[in-house]
Amino acid sequence: MAEPLRIALAGLGTVGAGVIKLLEANGTLIEKRAGRPIQITAVSARDRSKDRGVDLSSYAWEDDMTVMAARDDVDLVVELVGGSDGPALTLARNALRAGKSLVTANKAMIAHHGLSLAEEAESRGLSLKFEAAVAGGIPVVKGLREGAAANEIDRIYGILNGTCNYVLSTMEDTGRDFGDVLKEAQDLGYAEADPEFDIEGVDAAHKLAILSAIAYGARVDFDAIDKSGITRIRAADIAEASSLGYVIRLIGMADTDRAADGPLRLFQRVQPYLVPLDHPLAAVDGPTNAVVLEGNFVGRLLFQGAGAGDGPTASAVMADIIDIARGEESAAFSVPVGQLEHMAPAESGHRLSRAYLRFTVTDKPGVLAEITAAMRDAGVSIESLIQKGQAGDAHEVLVVMVTHECAEHCVTDAVKLLEGSESLTEPPLVMRLLGE
Amino acid sequence: MAEPLRIALAGLGTVGAGVIKLLEANGTLIEKRAGRPIQITAVSARDRSKDRGVDLSSYAWEDDMTVMAARDDVDLVVELVGGSDGPALTLARNALRAGKSLVTANKAMIAHHGLSLAEEAESRGLSLKFEAAVAGGIPVVKGLREGAAANEIDRIYGILNGTCNYVLSTMEDTGRDFGDVLKEAQDLGYAEADPEFDIEGVDAAHKLAILSAIAYGARVDFDAIDKSGITRIRAADIAEASSLGYVIRLIGMADTDRAADGPLRLFQRVQPYLVPLDHPLAAVDGPTNAVVLEGNFVGRLLFQGAGAGDGPTASAVMADIIDIARGEESAAFSVPVGQLEHMAPAESGHRLSRAYLRFTVTDKPGVLAEITAAMRDAGVSIESLIQKGQAGDAHEVLVVMVTHECAEHCVTDAVKLLEGSESLTEPPLVMRLLGE
Repeated sequence: MAEPLRIALAGLGTVGAGVIKLLEANGTLIEKRAGRPIQITAVSARDRSKDRGVDLSSYAWEDDMTVMAARDDVDLVVELVGGSDGPALTLARNALRAGKSLVTANKAMIAHHGLSLAEEAESRGLSLKFEAAVAGGIPVVKGLREGAAANEIDRIYGILNGTCNYVLSTMEDTGRDFGDVLKEAQDLGYAEADPEFDIEGVDAAHKLAILSAIAYGARVDFDAIDKSGITRIRAADIAEASSLGYVIRLIGMADTDRAADGPLRLFQRVQPYLVPLDHPLAAVDGPTNAVVLEGNFVGRLLFQGAGAGDGPTASAVMADIIDIARGEESAAFSVPVGQLEHMAPAESGHRLSRAYLRFTVTDKPGVLAEITAAMRDAGVSIESLIQKGQAGDAHEVLVVMVTHECAEHCVTDAVKLLEGSESLTEPPLVMRLLGE
Repeated sequence: MAEPLRIALAGLGTVGAGVIKLLEANGTLIEKRAGRPIQITAVSARDRSKDRGVDLSSYAWEDDMTVMAARDDVDLVVELVGGSDGPALTLARNALRAGKSLVTANKAMIAHHGLSLAEEAESRGLSLKFEAAVAGGIPVVKGLREGAAANEIDRIYGILNGTCNYVLSTMEDTGRDFGDVLKEAQDLGYAEADPEFDIEGVDAAHKLAILSAIAYGARVDFDAIDKSGITRIRAADIAEASSLGYVIRLIGMADTDRAADGPLRLFQRVQPYLVPLDHPLAAVDGPTNAVVLEGNFVGRLLFQGAGAGDGPTASAVMADIIDIARGEESAAFSVPVGQLEHMAPAESGHRLSRAYLRFTVTDKPGVLAEITAAMRDAGVSIESLIQKGQAGDAHEVLVVMVTHECAEHCVTDAVKLLEGSESLTEPPLVMRLLGE
């Protein structure tokens, strides 16, 4: 019998308990596939006495995670504590320094400190793996890093936040408004009590930063991501998008461009997009995640599945552990950290797209003329325009338009021309249409 | 610089030429990701003088593939010759015996001889990999074998043949009949001149046999697959399915069951199914492939992409090569061949499903009474029934019905009761409805 791979588990929330349940349920199968037993030897969490629905009696308990990471009977540390810095990061660094490989589901930590952790791991010949940090149970880090490894990646994009997708698709199905559906998502446990990270696009941006680094061989650059969330989307936007043949999805997207003969630059954005109904992402409902990657030989690949939850996340954590048990040891970001490039952020102004703009205006003469003049002056050509009175509010009117394809800066210019206008009751909402 | 991985390429059809083009286009990137250069040193094909659109002058040419496989300057052989036996199999065996790892896109060979090849590879500490044999460019062997490795697989199913999917979705879009669309698919190069392997479900069954072995830790059992093709599907079937809220797709499916306290048995079937419009597979059009796997922790995962073509297939071949270059060396079928189980084929008679039946009958009194009596006598409860005259044929009438959920043997019994009936102009066409 081959030597067991001995694991220390830090963090016993739903995912940590899920990993224990998974190993209890599928341990025999996992041993066969991994070629050796996988055993939890020690666990650590804040509160020893809490009932987590799993029996911890056969594992050593350590109050101090760092002490746990250094134990002689531990080969690999699983970090499920969460948070980009603080105890999770301290544990991660200490585990690697103690010569233990590290598996984590912590997207914030990898988005902010993944490079230094990967460097530490590489310098010691250890593995750092984080499949569960991106899109829950979907093996998309593996699909990108290994399955599509032969390809130059033209574009990678997807639905990376289940909470936002649940909120948007429920708004779509029910016609209800944002705040109302968010409240329900919180009651159902899909959204945190403080949902800001989800609905402002931060969580999706963490995942995008990780994917784009692997896809483009670039140093992780979370701060360069142009991100906005879904808080301003109204039931009326969903309805108008629908009448035009689109659904609204929060999309994280990365690609590259090049100014003249300059070096490649990395474009990264998290924004709500209008997705055509015949696009595979349009059918992605509820808390599901999906990632599309387009490679220069493989064409378009789609990976879809549960983006969160204890079972799917535990499945991804354990897939990483099995890889390590099997001896898979290549670089965390596909190429060694020293070979990742510093890619400057791409400008977005020259990018061509069609845009959806929604104006909330007071119902008085001349408003439409003012808006359309601003479009004209900024060089934006309008493809369609709808003006509708708002139910329940005699004075607020919605003006919705879709532009022809134009450079993004033209739309930005038009919006600027309207800044301070007394006709607008709030700043216009701008969303792009997802291109083929 | 690390030692290069030196490759011999056997077979220079579109995929073989695609591998050369891929390495020419993306070689630098691939070297970075693989951690070492990947070099083609020798090539072999039937006809040396044929123009393949690639420059072969920097590779050694070998007329004899076996001689090529034994060259000292070759570490790994890529078999792209095709055919389950004959030269491909001879080469594969000789390559492994000469101590070279083997990468192949040959689904027929792996479905028929994969176990003996894997055994040979294992006994010599070599790699055998065949990502490109299943679903073209989609990394689904990897997704199943590694990404979902922590899961018991509840069910695996998908669209595994691009030709059939092109034909069915084109019939759907255009209302045209089978023969007409198949002819077009041949003209477009999607279907072989002899399309039997595709349209009779043999090709899909090769892929299913490989997937189910990995999913269930079972010895590959191609012969046990209950397969039927799409040749009997008419435009009228597509139209009726559509009016009921379904599309027709050729689905390969595997799961397991157990009789009383007996051992697990493996169910494998390739058949046209009625797929509900809101199922992710319903949106899969044209020559695209898609595989769904359902795991006991990860839930439902979907992998979708191009199922054939030189670029996607070359991408999958190269992904295997990169894995080998990175030192990934685990068992071809996820567990060593000696640990794969002999699983008996599952009976299908007791399986519960809803069925679609289409009868082609002569237009005379009593026919409906005869059919419905047979259903009643076999214990099949009819959910809906439509009878329609056929355009252009005054004497032929279609009777289409959908049953309530019942054991499959009841439907078989009903069909048997009608055998030899003078009312039926051809045997009934039976398809199942894909369950959730």
